[in-house]
Amino acid sequence: MRAEPQDFSRVLSSMCTEPHPVAREAAEAFLATNPGDPGTYQTVAELETDAVDALGEIVGLDDPHGYVASGGTEANIQAVRAARNLAATEDPNVVLPESAHFSFRKAAGLLGVELRTAPVDDDYRVHVDAVTELADADTALVVGVAGSTEYGRVDPLDALADVADDAGALLHVDAAWGGFVLPFTDREWRFDHVDADTLTIDPHKMGCAAIPAGGFLTRSPEVLDALAVDTPYLESTDQATLTGTRSGAGVASVVAALEELWPEGYREQYVRAQNNADWLADALAERGYDVVEPELPLVAADVPPTLFDRLREEGWRISRTGAGELRVVCMPHVTREMLESFVADVDALRRTVSTGD
Amino acid sequence: MRAEPQDFSRVLSSMCTEPHPVAREAAEAFLATNPGDPGTYQTVAELETDAVDALGEIVGLDDPHGYVASGGTEANIQAVRAARNLAATEDPNVVLPESAHFSFRKAAGLLGVELRTAPVDDDYRVHVDAVTELADADTALVVGVAGSTEYGRVDPLDALADVADDAGALLHVDAAWGGFVLPFTDREWRFDHVDADTLTIDPHKMGCAAIPAGGFLTRSPEVLDALAVDTPYLESTDQATLTGTRSGAGVASVVAALEELWPEGYREQYVRAQNNADWLADALAERGYDVVEPELPLVAADVPPTLFDRLREEGWRISRTGAGELRVVCMPHVTREMLESFVADVDALRRTVSTGD
Repeated sequence: MRAEPQDFSRVLSSMCTEPHPVAREAAEAFLATNPGDPGTYQTVAELETDAVDALGEIVGLDDPHGYVASGGTEANIQAVRAARNLAATEDPNVVLPESAHFSFRKAAGLLGVELRTAPVDDDYRVHVDAVTELADADTALVVGVAGSTEYGRVDPLDALADVADDAGALLHVDAAWGGFVLPFTDREWRFDHVDADTLTIDPHKMGCAAIPAGGFLTRSPEVLDALAVDTPYLESTDQATLTGTRSGAGVASVVAALEELWPEGYREQYVRAQNNADWLADALAERGYDVVEPELPLVAADVPPTLFDRLREEGWRISRTGAGELRVVCMPHVTREMLESFVADVDALRRTVSTGD
Repeated sequence: MRAEPQDFSRVLSSMCTEPHPVAREAAEAFLATNPGDPGTYQTVAELETDAVDALGEIVGLDDPHGYVASGGTEANIQAVRAARNLAATEDPNVVLPESAHFSFRKAAGLLGVELRTAPVDDDYRVHVDAVTELADADTALVVGVAGSTEYGRVDPLDALADVADDAGALLHVDAAWGGFVLPFTDREWRFDHVDADTLTIDPHKMGCAAIPAGGFLTRSPEVLDALAVDTPYLESTDQATLTGTRSGAGVASVVAALEELWPEGYREQYVRAQNNADWLADALAERGYDVVEPELPLVAADVPPTLFDRLREEGWRISRTGAGELRVVCMPHVTREMLESFVADVDALRRTVSTGD
């Protein structure tokens, strides 16, 4: 290739990261395999069972069902699709927090379900009263977020489970990003604490597996059955995934990463990331910016648009929340040195911005 | 990894293959990149533009739009989704041959469109009269196959374009598998011969790129617009893909494979594969089995179920057509030696099957 692969030294915006060396090695070894055709590619199909079992352990599910998806978007679409297919109504709706990932809008458009969006409170968690008010007999799914994309917040999932139960709806927990950091906090988000039906947890985010490695998990084989289509001309007979051919690289790298890192490696990684987030939050607050407290390793701060743009011009890969705040995700590749260099650039540039240079 | 990656020495059922060494190298280099977030992962996003341009050349499209999808299933779903979103009707239908891939059934279930299935003729090509009869003012999409999954047949695409045009529908051509062999035949399937709107062509099949590398192409930017959703918290602003995070490995390997192999490498590969298919077809016909003529490098033969099962027990990865025939796809990894060994096993096993051992 003439092009250089990604330089991560200024990437602060991504929820993906560099895969762990063992995950990379496994991905490379299984690059030519297709778990979408498990009768032909049997070894990687067995590895996928191992991956699902290992993810089940992380999310507190004794008898997990599911698969390694292309990512959180697919897993979220599948949760909505299964709930729609299982719902008795002709006119299904999904009640979700306004903080939910935009993949639910994609899912709603695809699947023809109505989205009912509940506001969040001052600390960015969904108002349960609003969810209760929006849910009705046509509600197929209630969504709770465990580590929101913008502020890393966890919704009151127990209360959402009650609302879903009262409405006869399923509960989906989106822990796409949070799933590999939340085990080391005291927040309740697992199947064994929350009466969830389906869950998204992405190994290619904080799990340090190689892209594409999302995770779709459920406690009910019925959920997978509701997604299955028949598969002629494959050796296997049906397929519950959204895509057909899939990457064995992703699957193998999940198994390798989990064997290497669960739980101690992930714990150490979380502590480093959280310390980095706390350090950055303090540094930005000291400079007079409004900072949203980083409950998980994700910092949002109200940095002026001009400064934001100058930081981008310096090559920093940064993004904005919906409210326009600077958003920095403290992924495993984000070191303290990177953040110190970033803050030094903030200092240098805010002087030129304020003097109009 | 404790497990051994895939052994391809007996894989005759798959439409995937071992990636070309240059494709593998590029995939490994770009393993940690995400073209789903093009503002952050800019290099791989530029490579994707190169990939789409190169695929456009193969399919006869001067100003191609599209992207590298996870595979043919996603590309087919996206064609149905775009057509549905662009159709004026509340009750859209898709008219397709019974030989179309099962991903269209998945798409129909997802998207809530009606499928109207037209029968094929004695040579496995769709009856245009049946398509004409099934199409009406609610038809959003007509599908033609260019290299069918079961028999490698190409539908009369020009005639289908006329039917689509008369119905005010879009025409989608599924060349997922055929797209990298058809350029070396005299069959008309390209955008510059057929008035198609969208097309599926999968580099990770006959293109020798690494999984996941499908291709979704269109002549109209409006088609991509019809698929786009807004993307807060990314540096980019919208996303037309079905998945969110995507594999840069797939994208980079497409560019590398096309630079290395288009057109001469693919031509040589096609000639080898077609010769192998012709050889196998002759060998099976000589042994008294009914063989469907391999117009493209794919052999179907009416081998008895008992023999089929014994071949599987010997480790041959083989699959069946809907009619129950043995189906062998002569992918690049399938050598003459493999086929000779397979036919030797056919000879050995059919004796034991016929004597009841």
